[in-house]
Amino acid sequence: MNIRKDIVLGIDIGGTNTAFGFVDEEGNCIRESALPTNASESADLFFKRLFPAIEKMQTEMNGDYNLVGIGIGAPNANYYHGTVELPPNLNWDTTNVVELVEKRFNVPAVITNDANAAAIGEMKFGAAKGMKDFILITLGTGLGSGIVVGGNLVYGHDGFAGEVGHAIVKPGGRDCGCGRKGCLETYVSATGLKRTVYKLLANRITTSKLQDISYNQLTAKTIYNLAMEGDKIALEAFAQTGELLGKALANAIVYTSPEAIILFGGLALAGDLIVKPTEESLTKNALNIFKGKAKILLSQLSDKNAAVLGSAALIWSELEKNSKAVHPC
Amino acid sequence: MNIRKDIVLGIDIGGTNTAFGFVDEEGNCIRESALPTNASESADLFFKRLFPAIEKMQTEMNGDYNLVGIGIGAPNANYYHGTVELPPNLNWDTTNVVELVEKRFNVPAVITNDANAAAIGEMKFGAAKGMKDFILITLGTGLGSGIVVGGNLVYGHDGFAGEVGHAIVKPGGRDCGCGRKGCLETYVSATGLKRTVYKLLANRITTSKLQDISYNQLTAKTIYNLAMEGDKIALEAFAQTGELLGKALANAIVYTSPEAIILFGGLALAGDLIVKPTEESLTKNALNIFKGKAKILLSQLSDKNAAVLGSAALIWSELEKNSKAVHPC
Repeated sequence: MNIRKDIVLGIDIGGTNTAFGFVDEEGNCIRESALPTNASESADLFFKRLFPAIEKMQTEMNGDYNLVGIGIGAPNANYYHGTVELPPNLNWDTTNVVELVEKRFNVPAVITNDANAAAIGEMKFGAAKGMKDFILITLGTGLGSGIVVGGNLVYGHDGFAGEVGHAIVKPGGRDCGCGRKGCLETYVSATGLKRTVYKLLANRITTSKLQDISYNQLTAKTIYNLAMEGDKIALEAFAQTGELLGKALANAIVYTSPEAIILFGGLALAGDLIVKPTEESLTKNALNIFKGKAKILLSQLSDKNAAVLGSAALIWSELEKNSKAVHPC
Repeated sequence: MNIRKDIVLGIDIGGTNTAFGFVDEEGNCIRESALPTNASESADLFFKRLFPAIEKMQTEMNGDYNLVGIGIGAPNANYYHGTVELPPNLNWDTTNVVELVEKRFNVPAVITNDANAAAIGEMKFGAAKGMKDFILITLGTGLGSGIVVGGNLVYGHDGFAGEVGHAIVKPGGRDCGCGRKGCLETYVSATGLKRTVYKLLANRITTSKLQDISYNQLTAKTIYNLAMEGDKIALEAFAQTGELLGKALANAIVYTSPEAIILFGGLALAGDLIVKPTEESLTKNALNIFKGKAKILLSQLSDKNAAVLGSAALIWSELEKNSKAVHPC
């Protein structure tokens, strides 16, 4: 008799690409693929492309595996309702993705935003293995976060908890896309780093290759490369970004007293350039009883599969919860 | 046959007084009493006074009740270790209070700080009945907090979570007892209100009865009474305190997205004087997706028994958790 191994499907719906893959309980990605999201397309058309692509992959796996659930990471996803609610970068109406997916594949599905999925991914397969209290920070175009308390992700009463990027760190500071001023993500994110470079170009008289690059051309990767070459403006931009992140984390840890803060996403690839000043600033600015406790760690999810692993971990952790739950008599 | 009703003992160890009482599962306080804490006394001597006082009360109850557990609220209490760790206002060494109490009374005991106990008290018997996600703020000499996520109190990895009073709201602002500057409790607490009155007396040329009172004589109660008489400085002090609290809460709710914020303690007795400006400021300053969601509520624990009810609720909730837990095979 052939015993088929249980696997789940992880789907990460991004503004540009959608990645999906089959993942076992140890975090091995058996098979994965991606397709363009096509932001201008309706949800209906998008899923009409996605579902056959998944089924094709299933067929290629010759029935060696048993699909037991589907985890989905998506922008503006609501865990409680199973919906994606008017995502700002997609031309979708509010869509009940969990319903659509469960109907098509006939297994349990669950959805949350990408930062929450990444947090569960780190807990199950990455830097937060064995931890019950930590905060994951995604440093991309903006700053996303997933907060884990007592081994469970914090969703809040409405499913929207964990918006640490919109904690105001400088009252009256930089304009934020949310309509307010001084939000953490206007300073600490790929975009925040760029804005800091431009502030420094205004304030300093140091010569820098950054003076040859327009705002729209400049990327965090370029700033990183120049910092590694010793460019003073680039180095100071990273130092200021880490210093402010450390101050923000000194405020963040008073809420849930996490064991670690895990940095994930593009800017985290800068490694020590961002980690060192963040650590120093957190130690300097933390309340005494928290000093030296919360570690700053880098994501340990393989970068290629991170988003798919996160979504897969989400459904594995949900299946585990359900199997442990006490059923009412 | 006489069926004895289950009750718990709630103990609240404060800097000045220690209150204790027997409470049933509906939150009725069957009998309660208090004794002076005597801050200069050792823990050993303190418990040598407390235990016989409790036992005397037990005897008076003629065995009509069955003691099933003991909940304790105390400064610098660590839930995980059962200890009170070098409390700043008591002459105690680090003391394992849970061990002492369990040995003497032979029932399960549990300890946490007063704000956490108050949060559980509100959830079981007060303004947070039926809520799973809320934040309790105690406004006394300082600002304490208890955070509830998914129906559970947030203790953090080390037992010290929920220090919202030490979130920095004005970088470089007022000196705080913690050694840093600009912590929320330096503005929002009975002491913070006093400091704001003194700042206003420096800045304004309005005549006020507050100009006749020394800093050491001034109490939050006096400021409240003068505000009710229409004193402009007193009114402005409350307005500024609420405005800053609303801003701080706009930052706090991004972490756990609570259904409500419950105000507890001395300053909460000022009612609308503090609630109205807090509500207005929270609505004005909140991130769009949170606007109008988190309610500002006043504590509903009867003031006299609040601390004892909180400690009693703590142990009731723990006993409930244990009876629901799945035992490993």
